[in-house]
Amino acid sequence: MPDHTILFDAAEQPVLVPTGTLLTEAARLAGVELNQPCGGQGRCGRCAVQVKTGNVRARSTLRLSPEDVAKGYVLACQAVVEGNGAITVPPQEKIERVLTTDRNVAEITVPAGYSYERDQSVCRVALSLRSPSMDDQTDDWSRLKWVLEKQLGRGDIDISLPLMRSLGEMLRADDWRVTAILDAPSWDFCPDCPARLLDLRTGHFEEDDPLWGLAIDIGTTTVSLWLVDLISGEVKAQVAEYNQQITRGEDVVSRIIFANKESGREELRSLVLGTINELVERACKRVQVDANEIVKATVSGNSTMIHLLLGIPASSIRLSPFVTAVNNVPNLRASEIGLAIHSEATVDCLPGVASYVGADITAGVLSSGVDDSDEITLFLDVGTNGETVLGSSDWLVTCACSAGPAFEGAGVVDGMRATRGAIEEVWVHSETFEPTWRVIGNTKPKGICGSGMISLLAELFVTGVIDKGGHFNLSLDTARVRQGDHGGEYVIAWGSETTHGRDIVLSHVDVDNLLRAKAAIYAGFTVLADSVGIPLEMAERIYIGGSFGKYINVEKAVYLGLLPDMPWDCFQFLGNTSVQGAYQALLSRSARARVQDIASRMTYIELSADNRFFEAFTSALFLPHTDMALFPTVEQALVGSRVNKKSVNPGASTL
Amino acid sequence: MPDHTILFDAAEQPVLVPTGTLLTEAARLAGVELNQPCGGQGRCGRCAVQVKTGNVRARSTLRLSPEDVAKGYVLACQAVVEGNGAITVPPQEKIERVLTTDRNVAEITVPAGYSYERDQSVCRVALSLRSPSMDDQTDDWSRLKWVLEKQLGRGDIDISLPLMRSLGEMLRADDWRVTAILDAPSWDFCPDCPARLLDLRTGHFEEDDPLWGLAIDIGTTTVSLWLVDLISGEVKAQVAEYNQQITRGEDVVSRIIFANKESGREELRSLVLGTINELVERACKRVQVDANEIVKATVSGNSTMIHLLLGIPASSIRLSPFVTAVNNVPNLRASEIGLAIHSEATVDCLPGVASYVGADITAGVLSSGVDDSDEITLFLDVGTNGETVLGSSDWLVTCACSAGPAFEGAGVVDGMRATRGAIEEVWVHSETFEPTWRVIGNTKPKGICGSGMISLLAELFVTGVIDKGGHFNLSLDTARVRQGDHGGEYVIAWGSETTHGRDIVLSHVDVDNLLRAKAAIYAGFTVLADSVGIPLEMAERIYIGGSFGKYINVEKAVYLGLLPDMPWDCFQFLGNTSVQGAYQALLSRSARARVQDIASRMTYIELSADNRFFEAFTSALFLPHTDMALFPTVEQALVGSRVNKKSVNPGASTL
Repeated sequence: MPDHTILFDAAEQPVLVPTGTLLTEAARLAGVELNQPCGGQGRCGRCAVQVKTGNVRARSTLRLSPEDVAKGYVLACQAVVEGNGAITVPPQEKIERVLTTDRNVAEITVPAGYSYERDQSVCRVALSLRSPSMDDQTDDWSRLKWVLEKQLGRGDIDISLPLMRSLGEMLRADDWRVTAILDAPSWDFCPDCPARLLDLRTGHFEEDDPLWGLAIDIGTTTVSLWLVDLISGEVKAQVAEYNQQITRGEDVVSRIIFANKESGREELRSLVLGTINELVERACKRVQVDANEIVKATVSGNSTMIHLLLGIPASSIRLSPFVTAVNNVPNLRASEIGLAIHSEATVDCLPGVASYVGADITAGVLSSGVDDSDEITLFLDVGTNGETVLGSSDWLVTCACSAGPAFEGAGVVDGMRATRGAIEEVWVHSETFEPTWRVIGNTKPKGICGSGMISLLAELFVTGVIDKGGHFNLSLDTARVRQGDHGGEYVIAWGSETTHGRDIVLSHVDVDNLLRAKAAIYAGFTVLADSVGIPLEMAERIYIGGSFGKYINVEKAVYLGLLPDMPWDCFQFLGNTSVQGAYQALLSRSARARVQDIASRMTYIELSADNRFFEAFTSALFLPHTDMALFPTVEQALVGSRVNKKSVNPGASTL
Repeated sequence: MPDHTILFDAAEQPVLVPTGTLLTEAARLAGVELNQPCGGQGRCGRCAVQVKTGNVRARSTLRLSPEDVAKGYVLACQAVVEGNGAITVPPQEKIERVLTTDRNVAEITVPAGYSYERDQSVCRVALSLRSPSMDDQTDDWSRLKWVLEKQLGRGDIDISLPLMRSLGEMLRADDWRVTAILDAPSWDFCPDCPARLLDLRTGHFEEDDPLWGLAIDIGTTTVSLWLVDLISGEVKAQVAEYNQQITRGEDVVSRIIFANKESGREELRSLVLGTINELVERACKRVQVDANEIVKATVSGNSTMIHLLLGIPASSIRLSPFVTAVNNVPNLRASEIGLAIHSEATVDCLPGVASYVGADITAGVLSSGVDDSDEITLFLDVGTNGETVLGSSDWLVTCACSAGPAFEGAGVVDGMRATRGAIEEVWVHSETFEPTWRVIGNTKPKGICGSGMISLLAELFVTGVIDKGGHFNLSLDTARVRQGDHGGEYVIAWGSETTHGRDIVLSHVDVDNLLRAKAAIYAGFTVLADSVGIPLEMAERIYIGGSFGKYINVEKAVYLGLLPDMPWDCFQFLGNTSVQGAYQALLSRSARARVQDIASRMTYIELSADNRFFEAFTSALFLPHTDMALFPTVEQALVGSRVNKKSVNPGASTL
């Protein structure tokens, strides 16, 4: 096949590609960044580029207006090269830095009674060796090993090739005084299994010199990383950043699809690795630590994120019967996966349970203590997959309901992530239907984020702007409610009030998407309770994890029927339980053993194969639910509200 | 420092180097091959180059004639760049291919009673997995592991990241029918230690399908490699080649010196790796095997060779108190060291005992069975280091006597390796003193190799050309014995008979070097026997290992006092015992355990710190020895020979 020359205006050099090459691939080769939030499926329209000259065949123009098509716009992920061409790339949406304001910094206390000597799998030993002589010609490694085994009182020890290479020099640098750092994760259950020498340092240490470890949570949206002193157990830096994979798909399914493309898997691997390594650098800079001193990292994240980090194909996660390649990843070395810390550092990926119940959930159960309590607890990670766990110290059941990314800003026209410019809370006046809102960063709004949507939806429902089925009451006496392109819609902000000059609206389609999302989550609760034969009301506590969960207004979420109708003091917001669990497992061998126990004890219920789920889902597609008896507080509030409204504006409800 | 342009006539491009760069380093950067058999110490003179123009400072002109110096010749390893220059490189001596005639191919029989199932640490299992379904969403790795553990009836199993990456595809390629290859080297002594998954192959296998392994011996001079079917135990190909490191030093000490130079260690590592990988290719081609099917390699060699293969600094081997970095190398993966076989293949380096008693000797003891016999045996590897073991099933002592490389062709003016053109056997007429010789390859001679020297020295002694002290009898009536530049010398071949047109001689200096070498070896025997308090005569057998050993004429070696004076049937030539030991350890777990046992049981006697050695050495500096009572047969023969000679040519002995 002949090669064609494609010149992107944003690139320094033209690229040569064969017939049939996707424009996104050509752009990648040319070093041009093109966002593909839908993973290159032609669904989001964000990779549109303008073909100035040349022979490019567009396979789909969905998401492009006839005017754009006339101007030569194509979706780069759906257009193939058939001849030489010149392409103009519009400015790409920038992935902003995650706000590391107080919204993201957790108050962390070291687990009570943490003792480095007792709890930590990594140990540090100061050694003074006898130097070799003509009477004692023992080789360096045996000499070190012998003293180590004597000092530790047990076990066999392994050394890696790179350490063997530096051994002689290290031992002699300070007259045979060295500090050995070892990891013995399996000594608790296999005393004969070798410990691994992680590092050898010249000279000895002070008792309170830090020893560095990392707790990492790879979220689909955000990667969080804590730099931890393993000796004191203290978190010395917390940093977070958008997962750079986000430009290649906003949700896990889009990422898996992208990974299936040529070199897609390697690209996603290097994007998330880049994110992590940048965070390592940032955290180390803050605490003035050399990244090479970090000897252990515990990694949490959903199954897809773990697969993509390790470069393991994730395609089976997406296809029935939805299995992962590996739930229990054996310990790896940092150099094997490309983590920019000590090359021999242990990288411990926490265990997952299923394709859609990953290490983030087992870590969440660990850190929330659901598995260790007599009370029956409902643990919920509000996000794309709505992973839910119901259980106690006796039993644990879990499921994932594909809620879709509605609450994360996708699938909603003016939805956005919880960043600067996002409306995060809305109040709607019950008589005028005028909204008041709070915007992240106190700027003009440009969209609405998940917590804002929950708030708005509840307000619209309570004020009667939408009914039980989510339909807009178009007869209300307000310009805020109007007929849009796709049915009724509510104008949250007028163009004059927004950053982009366009109205910010919530349409009927958006409401439908949000209803489906909340119905899926609530149906999950129902099925879990049913699978263990208890009514959902038996749950005594509700833990809400995920950094997004923190910003949910419980009252409003209950109004929607997203959360069960329980006394407010039953609800607890735990923030990023995934990174917290990684932190606990990083610190303590027994916590690490507990997360393994959680993973093996947890019974996974596959909802897509469960008829009860469809039934429960259908019943939950209403506000708050078909069965109002499940939401007594809401029923009572509605009656109050409607009664109240009726008295002020008696016409409204009769229209 | 400014850079200077150096142009080698043999290079395509000039190189830019700073002031003070050695010409050998500049040549390396320019991609020009310069032999440095002495390791760049300025001793051998083989890296001489001609400076055509430019500013080059020569630090030493030893080994160069005044004429050469006048013509601008310098030793590249001793000359530094101080300005731009143009250099002419004379044709370099080619490292010939090792003759793989019958001289090098051993007759190998599979160890009696070898049973793959019982003996081999690598095992191969055919598995048929149940495919996942909505009722069984077990992840791929757990699914495989569960079936494996069930089938093997034990143990934990480890999987590497590359295998995790290919797992999903492999399992699905033939409908969940796979063959797993595992290595469980530690199950014998640590049943809880994990076995390692080496490879996963699509589908099942036939009972007698081969499973490939390698036995490798890295000699200082020659690398030998056997391709072995681990199922039948049969050796399917034997290949050998000069260790390409030879251009950077002929003996281990020169190599260590070279390795200490900038990038020297990496250069030596890549040279020996190149040799091995070429041999792998050659062996695989011969048997029509894909190198990726080789799943295990057992490596033997002296301690320096093992260190250099692994890129571990070897400098402490050379300096008092002569310790290695590591005698017991943990198992490595082929990809870690760069071996071009299956990336996950286990590479097992056999254990050494000391700096100069390496895995080649423990492997040699294993294959010769010294450690397993009631008879006291003297095991000898004739070579640069003259490693010797004395022992039985009850005890083992060992030493290395730095015999120097005389028997390998170095330190002797016309010495050469045992390749085409080398005189390998000599007879000297007792009356005319005319020699008859046999040349390897049946060509004109160009030098004399180790076995030739032993033969010649014995003949010269027996015929009275040299006396007990190695002094030439210059009064003999023959042109063969003459006064040379450095004292008396014997002309083995006249210039008219040689390939290069120069006389081939053995000089007084050569004789001295050979005497020192043989005295060191014999003194080693004496000290070993003394250290266990027995007379050397108590040894019942003498095993001679090393491929060179095979060509020694025992009678003549005894005449010299190189070997003890024992009945001929006590001597046995075993060939390359190092590769044979590697082969046995490759096949069998119990043989592997035995070699470990040998290494730990063997008591190493450091001769350089032993006064007995100096005494024994001095006594052995005569032909055959100061104490003629130790060599009764020789004494008798000499009397016979001299008496006989006297009767024929009575004048000779009186002159």
